[in-house]
Amino acid sequence: MSISKAPKTPHFNVTSPAPYIVSIEINRPSKLNAFYNPMWHELKSLLDFFSHDPDTRAIIISGAGDRAFTAGLDVTAASDSNSSALSSKEHSDPSRKATVLRRHILELQDVISSVARCEKPTIACMHGYAYGLAIDLSSACDIRLCAPDTKFCVKEVDIGLAADVGTLSRIPKVVGLTSWCKEVCLTARPFSPEEALHNNFVSRIVPGSKKDLFEAGVELAKLIASKSPVAVQGTKNILDAAHGRTVEDNLNYTAVWNAAMLQSSDVERAMLSGLKKRVPTFEKL
Amino acid sequence: MSISKAPKTPHFNVTSPAPYIVSIEINRPSKLNAFYNPMWHELKSLLDFFSHDPDTRAIIISGAGDRAFTAGLDVTAASDSNSSALSSKEHSDPSRKATVLRRHILELQDVISSVARCEKPTIACMHGYAYGLAIDLSSACDIRLCAPDTKFCVKEVDIGLAADVGTLSRIPKVVGLTSWCKEVCLTARPFSPEEALHNNFVSRIVPGSKKDLFEAGVELAKLIASKSPVAVQGTKNILDAAHGRTVEDNLNYTAVWNAAMLQSSDVERAMLSGLKKRVPTFEKL
Amino acid sequence: MSISKAPKTPHFNVTSPAPYIVSIEINRPSKLNAFYNPMWHELKSLLDFFSHDPDTRAIIISGAGDRAFTAGLDVTAASDSNSSALSSKEHSDPSRKATVLRRHILELQDVISSVARCEKPTIACMHGYAYGLAIDLSSACDIRLCAPDTKFCVKEVDIGLAADVGTLSRIPKVVGLTSWCKEVCLTARPFSPEEALHNNFVSRIVPGSKKDLFEAGVELAKLIASKSPVAVQGTKNILDAAHGRTVEDNLNYTAVWNAAMLQSSDVERAMLSGLKKRVPTFEKL
Amino acid sequence: MSISKAPKTPHFNVTSPAPYIVSIEINRPSKLNAFYNPMWHELKSLLDFFSHDPDTRAIIISGAGDRAFTAGLDVTAASDSNSSALSSKEHSDPSRKATVLRRHILELQDVISSVARCEKPTIACMHGYAYGLAIDLSSACDIRLCAPDTKFCVKEVDIGLAADVGTLSRIPKVVGLTSWCKEVCLTARPFSPEEALHNNFVSRIVPGSKKDLFEAGVELAKLIASKSPVAVQGTKNILDAAHGRTVEDNLNYTAVWNAAMLQSSDVERAMLSGLKKRVPTFEKL
Amino acid sequence: MSISKAPKTPHFNVTSPAPYIVSIEINRPSKLNAFYNPMWHELKSLLDFFSHDPDTRAIIISGAGDRAFTAGLDVTAASDSNSSALSSKEHSDPSRKATVLRRHILELQDVISSVARCEKPTIACMHGYAYGLAIDLSSACDIRLCAPDTKFCVKEVDIGLAADVGTLSRIPKVVGLTSWCKEVCLTARPFSPEEALHNNFVSRIVPGSKKDLFEAGVELAKLIASKSPVAVQGTKNILDAAHGRTVEDNLNYTAVWNAAMLQSSDVERAMLSGLKKRVPTFEKL
Amino acid sequence: MSISKAPKTPHFNVTSPAPYIVSIEINRPSKLNAFYNPMWHELKSLLDFFSHDPDTRAIIISGAGDRAFTAGLDVTAASDSNSSALSSKEHSDPSRKATVLRRHILELQDVISSVARCEKPTIACMHGYAYGLAIDLSSACDIRLCAPDTKFCVKEVDIGLAADVGTLSRIPKVVGLTSWCKEVCLTARPFSPEEALHNNFVSRIVPGSKKDLFEAGVELAKLIASKSPVAVQGTKNILDAAHGRTVEDNLNYTAVWNAAMLQSSDVERAMLSGLKKRVPTFEKL
Repeated sequence: MSISKAPKTPHFNVTSPAPYIVSIEINRPSKLNAFYNPMWHELKSLLDFFSHDPDTRAIIISGAGDRAFTAGLDVTAASDSNSSALSSKEHSDPSRKATVLRRHILELQDVISSVARCEKPTIACMHGYAYGLAIDLSSACDIRLCAPDTKFCVKEVDIGLAADVGTLSRIPKVVGLTSWCKEVCLTARPFSPEEALHNNFVSRIVPGSKKDLFEAGVELAKLIASKSPVAVQGTKNILDAAHGRTVEDNLNYTAVWNAAMLQSSDVERAMLSGLKKRVPTFEKL
Repeated sequence: MSISKAPKTPHFNVTSPAPYIVSIEINRPSKLNAFYNPMWHELKSLLDFFSHDPDTRAIIISGAGDRAFTAGLDVTAASDSNSSALSSKEHSDPSRKATVLRRHILELQDVISSVARCEKPTIACMHGYAYGLAIDLSSACDIRLCAPDTKFCVKEVDIGLAADVGTLSRIPKVVGLTSWCKEVCLTARPFSPEEALHNNFVSRIVPGSKKDLFEAGVELAKLIASKSPVAVQGTKNILDAAHGRTVEDNLNYTAVWNAAMLQSSDVERAMLSGLKKRVPTFEKL
Repeated sequence: MSISKAPKTPHFNVTSPAPYIVSIEINRPSKLNAFYNPMWHELKSLLDFFSHDPDTRAIIISGAGDRAFTAGLDVTAASDSNSSALSSKEHSDPSRKATVLRRHILELQDVISSVARCEKPTIACMHGYAYGLAIDLSSACDIRLCAPDTKFCVKEVDIGLAADVGTLSRIPKVVGLTSWCKEVCLTARPFSPEEALHNNFVSRIVPGSKKDLFEAGVELAKLIASKSPVAVQGTKNILDAAHGRTVEDNLNYTAVWNAAMLQSSDVERAMLSGLKKRVPTFEKL
Repeated sequence: MSISKAPKTPHFNVTSPAPYIVSIEINRPSKLNAFYNPMWHELKSLLDFFSHDPDTRAIIISGAGDRAFTAGLDVTAASDSNSSALSSKEHSDPSRKATVLRRHILELQDVISSVARCEKPTIACMHGYAYGLAIDLSSACDIRLCAPDTKFCVKEVDIGLAADVGTLSRIPKVVGLTSWCKEVCLTARPFSPEEALHNNFVSRIVPGSKKDLFEAGVELAKLIASKSPVAVQGTKNILDAAHGRTVEDNLNYTAVWNAAMLQSSDVERAMLSGLKKRVPTFEKL
Repeated sequence: MSISKAPKTPHFNVTSPAPYIVSIEINRPSKLNAFYNPMWHELKSLLDFFSHDPDTRAIIISGAGDRAFTAGLDVTAASDSNSSALSSKEHSDPSRKATVLRRHILELQDVISSVARCEKPTIACMHGYAYGLAIDLSSACDIRLCAPDTKFCVKEVDIGLAADVGTLSRIPKVVGLTSWCKEVCLTARPFSPEEALHNNFVSRIVPGSKKDLFEAGVELAKLIASKSPVAVQGTKNILDAAHGRTVEDNLNYTAVWNAAMLQSSDVERAMLSGLKKRVPTFEKL
Repeated sequence: MSISKAPKTPHFNVTSPAPYIVSIEINRPSKLNAFYNPMWHELKSLLDFFSHDPDTRAIIISGAGDRAFTAGLDVTAASDSNSSALSSKEHSDPSRKATVLRRHILELQDVISSVARCEKPTIACMHGYAYGLAIDLSSACDIRLCAPDTKFCVKEVDIGLAADVGTLSRIPKVVGLTSWCKEVCLTARPFSPEEALHNNFVSRIVPGSKKDLFEAGVELAKLIASKSPVAVQGTKNILDAAHGRTVEDNLNYTAVWNAAMLQSSDVERAMLSGLKKRVPTFEKL
């Protein structure tokens, strides 16, 4: 396993709960796993590494401690004038300040987009507080599971700004631009696991404790890891490409993609295994 | 409150049930609030006014009387040859007639689009008959609530024409292009509040009477009005921009938008209020 | 009825269970209605014919026998080296092989797209196994109904390839790019009728036997066939055009479409029938 | 001729130099036809009126006096704090100021877009100074002619702002995103009629005086006015729709558009005239 | 050479003037090569055949006789009521007539699109009259050459209809939406080879006779045929995909395309030939 | 000047020929400035640095030595099996090899895209050989100038692969998808400065030596550097956003962008300078 070669990230615990599976645990439980400056770069470095790591076939993202997946942005840290682009004194001109802010937002968005761009499937296992940034982060994951105690909130209108690192761009592709979607984004009211399930934000509420949730994530990851990595990574890439493009565009893109991918020996292996009722093994990717 | 400066609209009652909240009530109960010619212009003039009115932070649209939100187009009036582009005798040439009709459709679409374009959040509170135009109108609102007695219907195939003022363009972004969406649009069969909820067309069925429904709408509007108007209006704008565009496009648009908006004093006010557990107040917008 | 003029298709039973309604039954029950080479061309020829046939107003697609709608691709036949582009020995050069495969995929996609392109509404009635290709095929239909015994599966990652004839392009427009959608596509785990309903893939689970399911499909088709064909076909065309395009684009397209269609005598007939409480009749289209 | 019914516009002379032809002359020669506040609304009201006026088949836009088509924005007026959104004291909060500015820009853009939206072909005849706003305005016209003395300039970087009412959105569709296009936009250097012709911004430099230029515009307008208005307006609409959309989208849009338009009696008239070598006449539109 | 297996097309002469080169000559010189009904199907059958024919690497399209490439649609034949969808008496209802016309236009567009879709490069060699359909057809080719005597005309507004089989969708991607483009489309005035060259519609005016023009076309085709067919067909596909899509989309599409294509042995052959100054040979495709 | 803080790049000479102007000179003249592996990373590091460097307002890219801007990819190095993804022995499976290649292409594309993404205007000054990669690189610049001795070539079909790092995605936005564009891409024939100018690939052929060309580049850069950086960078951003999007989208994007940028003090400074005929100075950005 190549976890030993992964970037060192003090704020994230990286382990391998099963072959080909990587667990990334947000590790700042004393602050409800809230994000502050050093964590952004760490997160991106992990996703960039595992995206191309041939020993990785699925990634689980969860939060350390009993109380939170993540409570979102650490507002105290963010409002601290020494560390924040927001309160930068470098420029008084609003247009120059806007340029500095735009560059900063694009940089933070790029961290969350590194989750979405990761070639390997990602599974968010959410418990406790899943506020603000938790929605940005999990919306960029492929699969979202939650515990019965999860408290969700699209927090941004509460802190005076439109969600700026991905929620508003990704949530309409995930759940549609429904009445509920507008409601939770425009009011910042918390919502329950049941609402999240009814509105298709999560695919399952895993009964039991945080540990049960994590185990359900591992089981799902193992199922994915047992399939052809060529097929799994292709499926993820093609599904993600569909948003904001026409069906005709997507069909052509799929045909071009599969022109190479159908030459994989995995197809033959998988078909023979199916016919012979054996478990196939696949080369790394 | 600036309601006194709003356009005069005999077919719509305009009131302010709470600070910063505007209620627009369709007021033609003797005809089940069905639309005829003079009402289109009135509706657009109201939405255009409140869109930029700094005293308005959320808008509720409902129907007068016990029986209907709106029964849709007043077909008797629409088929009256004196008032209708449809039966215009001006041209016999089908291509010229088509041009006249196209201009007329674009004009009506523009009325419904004035609801969608309104910078302030809009909440449709639907009871009784919500047929035909009711779907066009409420699909252009941000949030849809209904009463237990609401009867919905995408009426257009029943009157021999493809829905032409917005339903077919907006409903797939609201609920997805699901089997149910196609079914109700291709059959014009009525559907219930429970179906509307299951299929994410409404976010809530408010138990009780029409009055309870309206009060639920006011509560929701008050919650929205308590947040930073910079954040609320930005959230609406960015969510709406997402449809039919790629995630990458939307992220960049969000960054450009927020480059100006993050300079708002609302961010500081909201954050401080959060830390100090006080209710923040925000300047008008 | 023009069924007698339809193409001859040994692997599909074509009947007319009611006026204006065509039933296409996949007819290879001994192989769970799995598809092999000759069936692709037959299916396309039927859809192309009925798309423009004036006697047809709605189409039902179902599977023969008690066990399956269709179990998908006949893998044994597909892996047979004599009949398969996949195992073609014509080229050893991977780029030339990719070109042959791309042409082949585009050809198969075009079969499924002939279902989506069909101007008349299509209703998939699914029972038993609805695996792999069943999802491609039914995603291209307008309406999906199922029996209580239906077993669904997006099979592709199980046979080593990304779904290449339409599922991955169409399913996000049908159900959204939800957590569940990613989960069933990335794991190839079977899913139940209840899951399909909760996630809006089907609009109804018809209680009872396969026969009950088919009758429900016929009732739905009859309701559609009783409406103006100008309005029904326009509604289908405009709804389908909405995906991957902006609301503004769609509104303009709708206005151009209806400029011609509103001149239909159907509008007058439908409106008069509504006012006089009579059943209207409409010319063929 | 319906010019007598056109809106009254003190800053624009409106005449009809030939049947079906409208001439709009910017009339503020003492200020080099520079635009200030009252002129925006006048311009839009004219274009909106003639867009649907059945007596109008082509529109010529030119500038009064010998010295300028238009020198652009009247900077002195624009920097006058009493009349300008730019220097509004209403808000000190940069985000609120941004909202006010955005609304104002959208309003000005909408004036220029009324030229682009006009259903009838528009011909810009440019002489003398054609600076700043002259490029926004003429880029929104269909055809651009110029005199040998014309001095062009994309002026915006000279006054500290990115061109905000249309040039930057339209010039790449007119001339491509060429090296020359970037050069003149990024430097604000003036360019000559010869450069404008070489780079396809104008289609002709008319030799001689301003009067000769106007006569060339009238000749061109008369040629357009002699054709079927159904065909001319359709051609303009379809060409304009092509930008930023795929060829497949455009072909389908064209087919839908022409489904109505081919039913025009103009087609028969034009064909018969062609065969019989007569000049056809066409109904108004 | 596989020309002997090509479809039989009485109205088109098909020859091979050099290895891997196919010449398609429009062969109705007595009518200035004007198109009438039987020719459409023949043209499409040829392009579909040669698109996938491994012996073909470039295609030249020219017109028989001294007088015309093609004078366009045979208006006399098109206005003959027995053969024309336009004058169909099948329906009197304008909406049904529109449906018949739309289907017919889509069918004709598909013929011209078969030229654009052809995987092998196409070269139009135009002399004499190149009117109406000549522009649709040559706009769908990759390369356009002309003789000094060529007379071009976008004829459609002269016959009362907006160009409906491809010109208006393709000419803005070929020459930009320039002033000249609008001028020739809105006036139907003929234009000269020099104008065609200045405005980038043709890349060369070949001096001399029609024979010289054809030989120049053959030389160009031979140059293309000497290159790797994997590289040539990829280049055509990727360039065509660029229109109406963003640069980011196109870069990603290119990367997916080349992931398979770079595995070609052609790359090694071409590189070695370059280093060793030899002429490479490439396998068919 | 912050050049001293720029990344160290042995293969690129970085100097400042005038205040606010950066010159990047490709420095491998012994190999005609052909690119090999270490150069890619160096180039990207420079563009990323200067994109945000407040002391930089325009960038000139040129080639060292008398003989070439750049001869393109160093084919000898690229075909060396030790350094090339192309000849990687890591995988024999074509689908896995395709994945490795795709990742590699995306990485190289990202280098060229760093030129396009650079917030400051870039000017390519080309002399001598400008082959292959020279076209990818200069197409990503804003402005292209050349010397009278420049020899251009889209080289890719000569080395057996479709241009994969940007040319095919960017050249159609630069020059249109003209006959000439297809011709030079499909034949790999060299083309002259006069052709490049006629076809709008360069905006000027600077007479004289390479030194004169560079001085022309510096003069142009100085002109740009004298303007408001807020206006210049906004103009570049908005022009680049226009490709592949509709005019309506671009207008809205422009309005949102300028909502912040119009608050710049540069607008006032520039306007006052214009009125008072003084040279304005602007803060860094």
